[in-house]
Amino acid sequence: MAEDHESHARVRVRRRGDDHARRPRDSGLAQGNFPAILKRSLKPVEPLNPEQLDAVHRASITILEDIGIEFMGAKARAAFAKAGAKVDDGTGIVRIPEALISEALKTAPRSFALTPRNPARRIELGGDALAFSLVAGPPTVEDRVNGRRPGNLEDYRRLIQLAQSFDIIHLIGNQPTAPQELPAQSRHLDCYLANVTYSDKVYHCTAIGAERALDGIDMAAIARGLTREDLVTDPSCITIISVNSPRRFDEAMSDGLMAMAEWGQASVITPFTLMGAMAPVSLAAALAQQNAEALAGITLTQLTRPGAPVVYGAFTSNVDLRSGAPAFGTAENARATLIGGQLARRYNLPYRASNASASNAVDAQAAYESEMSLWSSVLGGANLVYHGAGWMEGGLTASFEKIVLDVEMLHLMAGLVQPFDISDAELGLDAQREVAPGGHFFGAQHTLARYQTAFHKPLIADWRSYPNWAADGGHDATARATAIWQQALNAYVAPQLDPGIKEALDAFVMKRKEERRTAQD
Amino acid sequence: MAEDHESHARVRVRRRGDDHARRPRDSGLAQGNFPAILKRSLKPVEPLNPEQLDAVHRASITILEDIGIEFMGAKARAAFAKAGAKVDDGTGIVRIPEALISEALKTAPRSFALTPRNPARRIELGGDALAFSLVAGPPTVEDRVNGRRPGNLEDYRRLIQLAQSFDIIHLIGNQPTAPQELPAQSRHLDCYLANVTYSDKVYHCTAIGAERALDGIDMAAIARGLTREDLVTDPSCITIISVNSPRRFDEAMSDGLMAMAEWGQASVITPFTLMGAMAPVSLAAALAQQNAEALAGITLTQLTRPGAPVVYGAFTSNVDLRSGAPAFGTAENARATLIGGQLARRYNLPYRASNASASNAVDAQAAYESEMSLWSSVLGGANLVYHGAGWMEGGLTASFEKIVLDVEMLHLMAGLVQPFDISDAELGLDAQREVAPGGHFFGAQHTLARYQTAFHKPLIADWRSYPNWAADGGHDATARATAIWQQALNAYVAPQLDPGIKEALDAFVMKRKEERRTAQD
Repeated sequence: MAEDHESHARVRVRRRGDDHARRPRDSGLAQGNFPAILKRSLKPVEPLNPEQLDAVHRASITILEDIGIEFMGAKARAAFAKAGAKVDDGTGIVRIPEALISEALKTAPRSFALTPRNPARRIELGGDALAFSLVAGPPTVEDRVNGRRPGNLEDYRRLIQLAQSFDIIHLIGNQPTAPQELPAQSRHLDCYLANVTYSDKVYHCTAIGAERALDGIDMAAIARGLTREDLVTDPSCITIISVNSPRRFDEAMSDGLMAMAEWGQASVITPFTLMGAMAPVSLAAALAQQNAEALAGITLTQLTRPGAPVVYGAFTSNVDLRSGAPAFGTAENARATLIGGQLARRYNLPYRASNASASNAVDAQAAYESEMSLWSSVLGGANLVYHGAGWMEGGLTASFEKIVLDVEMLHLMAGLVQPFDISDAELGLDAQREVAPGGHFFGAQHTLARYQTAFHKPLIADWRSYPNWAADGGHDATARATAIWQQALNAYVAPQLDPGIKEALDAFVMKRKEERRTAQD
Repeated sequence: MAEDHESHARVRVRRRGDDHARRPRDSGLAQGNFPAILKRSLKPVEPLNPEQLDAVHRASITILEDIGIEFMGAKARAAFAKAGAKVDDGTGIVRIPEALISEALKTAPRSFALTPRNPARRIELGGDALAFSLVAGPPTVEDRVNGRRPGNLEDYRRLIQLAQSFDIIHLIGNQPTAPQELPAQSRHLDCYLANVTYSDKVYHCTAIGAERALDGIDMAAIARGLTREDLVTDPSCITIISVNSPRRFDEAMSDGLMAMAEWGQASVITPFTLMGAMAPVSLAAALAQQNAEALAGITLTQLTRPGAPVVYGAFTSNVDLRSGAPAFGTAENARATLIGGQLARRYNLPYRASNASASNAVDAQAAYESEMSLWSSVLGGANLVYHGAGWMEGGLTASFEKIVLDVEMLHLMAGLVQPFDISDAELGLDAQREVAPGGHFFGAQHTLARYQTAFHKPLIADWRSYPNWAADGGHDATARATAIWQQALNAYVAPQLDPGIKEALDAFVMKRKEERRTAQD
């Protein structure tokens, strides 16, 4: 399995200057006038007072020290045992003393950067930095032209192309859909190849076991003309560790986590704490559990390699207690997300939240649930908003229209957090002196000097009068989103990739597919 | 005109105990488990630092002192002149010294209550209190059953019935639609009568001139079995003063404002500062103008009656600079709303913002624009979210489906701001001990003790699996909203009204209609 896979990338190829920084031909789509790395100028909301926050922390420490977390993987248990945790190899239960957590939190970085093959697409995680990812994980794909269908590689590629088309999508998360026609043991290689071919952004390594993670790291290294060793101190990759809540890490997960940490790549530890199902029904208890599980995983990254980049992940929402169906974008979800940020900041860790919705259609429900998620993420101080664009049905479907709708909402969030300029020039008393009472500012000097960049231009919002809108077909926002993803795909141009690198990537994939043909994981 | 209308209500009738507090028969609609008066447990967001906030204040003082505000009404100018402002009766320009503003801010109440005929429907404005109003002002009405049409009295009544049906709509704003078939000079009387007949909530008085305002106050007094004088210290009514930005109050507006203040009723001073049109294109300048205009109106209320209840209103959004079309729910709108709250708090005044959208359809755009408005309102510290339910097309249309969609979103906001319980019982370590790693909490004692009230039950969100949803018709959120307003109207029962009071109200309306038959305003 994973541990014995050490044939990592050493391909070095000539770089072609700034080719990577070249932008695709203009699609005509509004991108927003935002910096490459967004910074949030609004201070995070702090729902809990210090005593309440401490009570959540204390409860999570009781879970860690006294109740324990199950680690099914022997390698993880060995790491904890070596560090002084109480390990029961029979049950797999690891009881982690608070001192071990505290030590880990000393070495976990407060902030870090990930650099993809195009350095202009570098992302930062931590502080006020804010990054949005593409939808990750759905088995199903949907759009209004081709309908709802199982994911396949062609859809996968088109989803990556869409992510590449919109600057506000800063990174590729886990597979935006599963290419189900491909063999499970080597599918990740095709996905990584599509990520590197059709985009030049940071991408996610599948950490189901170490091997898949290392393949992703190796390909990121090849794409940058570097080696896996080079990436240890200059990371490119990120993975999500979705805890098997309550209080369980399976073996593939902890092995993947440890492989990522060993090679200096970023892990996001995200407990899957749906209140009423995998977590207790109360917000306080779910947060205590989330915190315990996140701290357990975070500690394991630091036991593996002190200083390994790691992110505190939150995914606490609720289920419909009549049906057990998961819900997202609820008030309970938003409150948990806001508090999750407080917990992450308490530990000086970068914070991950999500843009989530349970809606079955790209409709008003999809929009308001996503807005609930987005506002609570952004004002909760999230550095990474995972599933930033395209997530539907509680994660079961990747939607092309939802990507466009989400891009619009992400632009609004990016606009929201821009710095505030309250200079004399912006206060514009000259304009007040120029315009008479009851007049208008359309032609004022102050307006003329600013009107071209004054306001964000929307992608799908239609502000025309009703008669004009109706005369033009009366298309709703979702229908307009269909036209926009089609326009984006039509205008898509793959980011330039050095032919030598492309060759090396193809060779790597071929070799690894051969090696993985009989893999059991 | 207004000033000579003094024939106010003195009807006293027997009250029928707690009949007013009786709830209509259960419509089966989820109302949310919220207190009658919502309190926001999240601290407001503070986008500007103290220096920046002061710079906006200083710029607005320059506008007030140096550039001046036009008051077209002689009565308003006389009040300012008497108080020591520099008044130019030729141009109507009033220059208001900062000292006069400061004096006014000393007497304006930090918080106040308004009591309608059903005292259980009392609202508070100020502090952490949060109230939502029905859509106000549209000439047009729309629903998916009957289409889009000019507003009429029958629609007016049904909109009031819907407001009465949902507890989260705390008050009736200005006419939810204009009953355009009725004569303009007495239409307000029919509207007030519908407000008092079909609801028992606080309502808005039209303050276009003093007469219409006083009619509303008188009818509120009659409905409570009180006199207009009784209401001076125990107010029932609210009005919106929409400034003719930039920097102009017309005569009807200032007369209405002064009538409301004279009789101790609440005014909300809301500058109509659309950036790029009636305000400069920059956020800082628009806020300086908003602040100057709001402070001018607020000062006039206190010159009229020190201690008169008054609210700082914000409505700063932007226009599409290519077309001049107003936009709402934009990032610019949200940023202005957040900062507006800081300004209101600087002056210890209650704060009004809005739930606004420019969408022509009840679609994803309507939802995300409203969410942008709602989050910025609620986290901006708004006490009154005007147009809380039903506002479409930038205020041109009242939509039945949008009311339902907004009620859902208001419930989410109400859930968001509830207190956080981080007690030991809620932290639920017992549940963690009860459930094994990888298990679930469906049957845990902690869950069983709480599941019936654990989570908010949505009105329109559909969390079923896609196959179940699709098999049931695959209705989107807007189609589900249609079913819900129909259900609400079917279940609607008018709140009990004492026959003696009803008779007195009818008599008042008849008398006033006769008096207003030849009115010119």
